[in-house]
Amino acid sequence: MFTIFNNHQTMISQYISGLLAAHRHLAKWQEFPIIYNRYQDDQIVPILSGGGSGHEPAHAGFVGDGMLAGAVYGNLFTPPCASDILEALRLLDKGKGVFVIIKNFEADLREFKTAIALARQEGRQIRYIVSHDDISVEPKNRFQMRHRGLAGTILLHKIIGAAAQQGADLLRLEKLAFSLATEIATIGFATKSAHLPETTHPLFDLADNQISYGIGIHGEEGYRTVPYVSSEALAVEITNKLQIAFHWQEGEAFILLVNNLGTTTDLEQGIFLNDICQLLDLDGLSLPFIKSGKLMTSLDMKGISVTLCRIKDNQWIDYLQAPTNAYAW
Amino acid sequence: MFTIFNNHQTMISQYISGLLAAHRHLAKWQEFPIIYNRYQDDQIVPILSGGGSGHEPAHAGFVGDGMLAGAVYGNLFTPPCASDILEALRLLDKGKGVFVIIKNFEADLREFKTAIALARQEGRQIRYIVSHDDISVEPKNRFQMRHRGLAGTILLHKIIGAAAQQGADLLRLEKLAFSLATEIATIGFATKSAHLPETTHPLFDLADNQISYGIGIHGEEGYRTVPYVSSEALAVEITNKLQIAFHWQEGEAFILLVNNLGTTTDLEQGIFLNDICQLLDLDGLSLPFIKSGKLMTSLDMKGISVTLCRIKDNQWIDYLQAPTNAYAW
Repeated sequence: MFTIFNNHQTMISQYISGLLAAHRHLAKWQEFPIIYNRYQDDQIVPILSGGGSGHEPAHAGFVGDGMLAGAVYGNLFTPPCASDILEALRLLDKGKGVFVIIKNFEADLREFKTAIALARQEGRQIRYIVSHDDISVEPKNRFQMRHRGLAGTILLHKIIGAAAQQGADLLRLEKLAFSLATEIATIGFATKSAHLPETTHPLFDLADNQISYGIGIHGEEGYRTVPYVSSEALAVEITNKLQIAFHWQEGEAFILLVNNLGTTTDLEQGIFLNDICQLLDLDGLSLPFIKSGKLMTSLDMKGISVTLCRIKDNQWIDYLQAPTNAYAW
Repeated sequence: MFTIFNNHQTMISQYISGLLAAHRHLAKWQEFPIIYNRYQDDQIVPILSGGGSGHEPAHAGFVGDGMLAGAVYGNLFTPPCASDILEALRLLDKGKGVFVIIKNFEADLREFKTAIALARQEGRQIRYIVSHDDISVEPKNRFQMRHRGLAGTILLHKIIGAAAQQGADLLRLEKLAFSLATEIATIGFATKSAHLPETTHPLFDLADNQISYGIGIHGEEGYRTVPYVSSEALAVEITNKLQIAFHWQEGEAFILLVNNLGTTTDLEQGIFLNDICQLLDLDGLSLPFIKSGKLMTSLDMKGISVTLCRIKDNQWIDYLQAPTNAYAW
């Protein structure tokens, strides 16, 4: 088990150079760890997100028409610093303000909030949402009472990005983001921990044939470890946890997002998606939009997260189906 | 190391059910292992491909407007049987004939050729191309003198699919496919072998920190095993082999396709892509189209393949850039 790379110092910048070669709509801002959409329309409100590295294809994979206008990177599992975020806000602000999507981690919040305060002092209009879709808060983990921002954040990127593309102003985006963020829940499992580059030690211990439920995306261990039985057994546990979070009724409509946390194969993900769909169908839920892909990872962790979003407004579906050239959607 | 699934008998059909849930343009034909584009335009020549399972997102990931009209599956690393291929040819043929893309493996050729002969006996117009982009034929491997069909096959899917979408007839597609197939070369490396579901034994032995160059996509070992040094060292070896195949001159233009063979992370792939681009740039090559993604895998093998296609006609670039709703392009 080792990572294909050259060295730690150049890791993120070489990755970004590779991205720019393959995706002509992406550009890098000077020497800052900022990727932006070079064709961004100045007449729409730009959306900024970002966070630590190690979650590829997040965040640059969601930069493009109809999603993010820019993304700002930190080092591995470390948020971007406030000064880089401020630089990104200055770059994107063309007079319509900037809407910011922040994942709910203590260090991310600290840096983003500092940058937003400084940008506002410069007279810029900045509004933001904190995504907190994680529902894996259990008695065992009392010390971890924070609802972290996980793959559900990508639904915010897509829906808010499409609304901005269709002309919504900053206050409308803020209102939409609040309605959405409280309806999104995510929970996942890992069958193998991630490894940091140049180490062969996993970030948490997980014996062969064991499953950890409720893992985070920075190597945080889950709330329970049990032996692996089958894809169906995984889907039952995950669906039960989502049912406890939503208390859904037969006939309710949800958006479903199934996310590869790193090194799950497409074959496995398709089989697991089928199990999840069958269980939700048994409960009588309607799923008018299903997305399956690799959107928010944790390096080479093997596992899957499942996100549901209760649909309060059918326009959310239109926003999800709107076109984008963001390469990882 | 284990595979998330339920059981061998249902593996492929459950995977296909998951695919159909997530991708509304895909449909399954009766009880056959055939996936087709439900919105296929009857006025254009349909393209059929397929092969064994275990290469996901191939082949269904390339079914859609502007790429394949249908794909036919076999079991794990086993080609579809002739009778299923014949059924797919009958399904797709609406009077314009069918163009078929076959990967150059002995068993695939046998089944496809039998099906094509039977379809022609029914009066159907069928033309085909055999993709043979593999260049990892070395003296050590004299027994394996076949140039296998690898990820370069996906360039055929895209370019021929776009040409059909734009109205090319069967003979024009055949001519285009011949021009293309002789200009495409692929070579890859693995850092970890694939494992079959329900086994913990790798398909070939590869010690920790070792690289195998020139691997196949069905667990075939490569031509040489060496210790891992860096991403750049990998890129040097791969670029040297491609240079020997093409004898390129400064200023020549190529299509570049970098393909995740299974469980490489996006971070690693971006870094390696950057190394490949730098080396090709040093040689003075022009790369007007670069694609990086996960297109043709070998279960959970970790590794990357690199495909180059010498550009003989700039229309090939237009075809590559034409829109498609195939989800894995």
